[in-house]
Amino acid sequence: MAGDLRSLARAATAIENQTAAGRELSATLFPNTGRAVIIGITGAPGAGKSTLVDQMIAMMRTAGKSVGVIAVDPSSPFTRGAILGDRIRMQRHHADAGVFVRSMATRGKLGGLARGTLEMALLLDAAGRDYVIVETVGVGQDEVDIARLADVTVVVLVPNMGDEVQAIKAGIMEIADVFAINKADLPGAERLEQELRAMQSIAPVCRVVSTDGTGVGDLIQVIRDVYESHGPRSRSVESWSLRLTEMLRDQLLESLPAQAIEQHAERVAEKMEDPYSALAALVCLVKEKVIE
Amino acid sequence: MAGDLRSLARAATAIENQTAAGRELSATLFPNTGRAVIIGITGAPGAGKSTLVDQMIAMMRTAGKSVGVIAVDPSSPFTRGAILGDRIRMQRHHADAGVFVRSMATRGKLGGLARGTLEMALLLDAAGRDYVIVETVGVGQDEVDIARLADVTVVVLVPNMGDEVQAIKAGIMEIADVFAINKADLPGAERLEQELRAMQSIAPVCRVVSTDGTGVGDLIQVIRDVYESHGPRSRSVESWSLRLTEMLRDQLLESLPAQAIEQHAERVAEKMEDPYSALAALVCLVKEKVIE
Repeated sequence: MAGDLRSLARAATAIENQTAAGRELSATLFPNTGRAVIIGITGAPGAGKSTLVDQMIAMMRTAGKSVGVIAVDPSSPFTRGAILGDRIRMQRHHADAGVFVRSMATRGKLGGLARGTLEMALLLDAAGRDYVIVETVGVGQDEVDIARLADVTVVVLVPNMGDEVQAIKAGIMEIADVFAINKADLPGAERLEQELRAMQSIAPVCRVVSTDGTGVGDLIQVIRDVYESHGPRSRSVESWSLRLTEMLRDQLLESLPAQAIEQHAERVAEKMEDPYSALAALVCLVKEKVIE
Repeated sequence: MAGDLRSLARAATAIENQTAAGRELSATLFPNTGRAVIIGITGAPGAGKSTLVDQMIAMMRTAGKSVGVIAVDPSSPFTRGAILGDRIRMQRHHADAGVFVRSMATRGKLGGLARGTLEMALLLDAAGRDYVIVETVGVGQDEVDIARLADVTVVVLVPNMGDEVQAIKAGIMEIADVFAINKADLPGAERLEQELRAMQSIAPVCRVVSTDGTGVGDLIQVIRDVYESHGPRSRSVESWSLRLTEMLRDQLLESLPAQAIEQHAERVAEKMEDPYSALAALVCLVKEKVIE
């Protein structure tokens, strides 16, 4: 909470590894959360999300704000560290204590990524970061769930990329609070903006060129405006209902032995067992584990 | 199993109401399942799914096949019965014992619809139906889960409806085994077909005009071809793993008192409780219920 980066890094590791100490820390820190603006940045691979995040960091720092970044996108340069087993921060911000970057490269078979990301966001919030940016690639239900935990969700699109292909990705368009058209200096930007407006979404549309920073200041202002009008959605009862439901599901299913579901599925597929008996057996297994 | 419609209707009600007798019946009937071809029909509201299903039924009956229909789509005329509290079958097939229609109009807050639909499909399979058609509207995760339980999933699209709007619906495009372009006599059909092919999906594209039956025979043949090449996917180990996971989640969460999650969410949002303590309390509640 004093802002020490090494302590923060150690805390992040404890939380990511879901150790008992990590959970205790999360619980202890919880009362100190509630000040950060959590921004979700999502979109298809190749939309330039990381470059945009990089520019946003630079502008937030210029304004004297501290930033925490959680990179869940496996295609992001931010996650390279995690993939190499060596946590790195972007070169550009490496010497800046006001920027803390954490990548989340692992995901459990039965979920858990959304939960881990939430705990990390709460840690960075408690550590006094003004902004917490969560970067995800918008391709699956996990990613949609993660984007939902933000106060403001920005969907990044680029012109001429095949709007259908971008839109198809798991209903991510529906959760946009703000659309950012990146590479807005390309010819198709106008058409893309018209298409987005034709969707009759109330989400504002911003044009940016993340390689040179054009429009990024305006985007941050729009994000702030949306935050002011919505309030801290990430801390609403509705949001917590959703999260607690997910956490509970994960917790209950994680307690199962790894192969239990598949073994029963094999038996059911071979008609050696009916699905209701399999379900009863699995409930018993959860019960045993929950009691332990 | 002798094909008596009244018995079938009673069995369907017992299963839908999730009575103990219904579950016992499901378990007893399970060994008799495995012969029906389960076809999922999904798409945006207004795509003409119900009219298409109606034409498919007529052609299947002409070919001497028996049909069961499960209508999950709340906008379908098939579900009107359920909404009115009075189960009706489509007028056209009313006198035909070879057609059994069941609508599923209710859904639990924490899921359960996918599971109920599965049990209904297994009942119709055990009752000797050659085809079981499951009609859903492709707008949410529930619907995607339901479509996934089919052997062959048909996504119905119409020209000029705003492809983005159709595609946005919760990643439903990704689960298509077959695309049906309905109202294919409209001008934009060619363009829609090109767009679908440009997605590089391997799913075949069929053009139909469901109001007069054009192309519906071909569509059924394509569905059969896909079924022959995939095999009965609904009965695979992978499919059962997915279903057992969902059934287990539903079962565990259903055991919670209705307001439990929301009450804890309120306490967490007000910072009277941290999320990890709330989670532990909820796990305890599940444990108590599971033991009962």
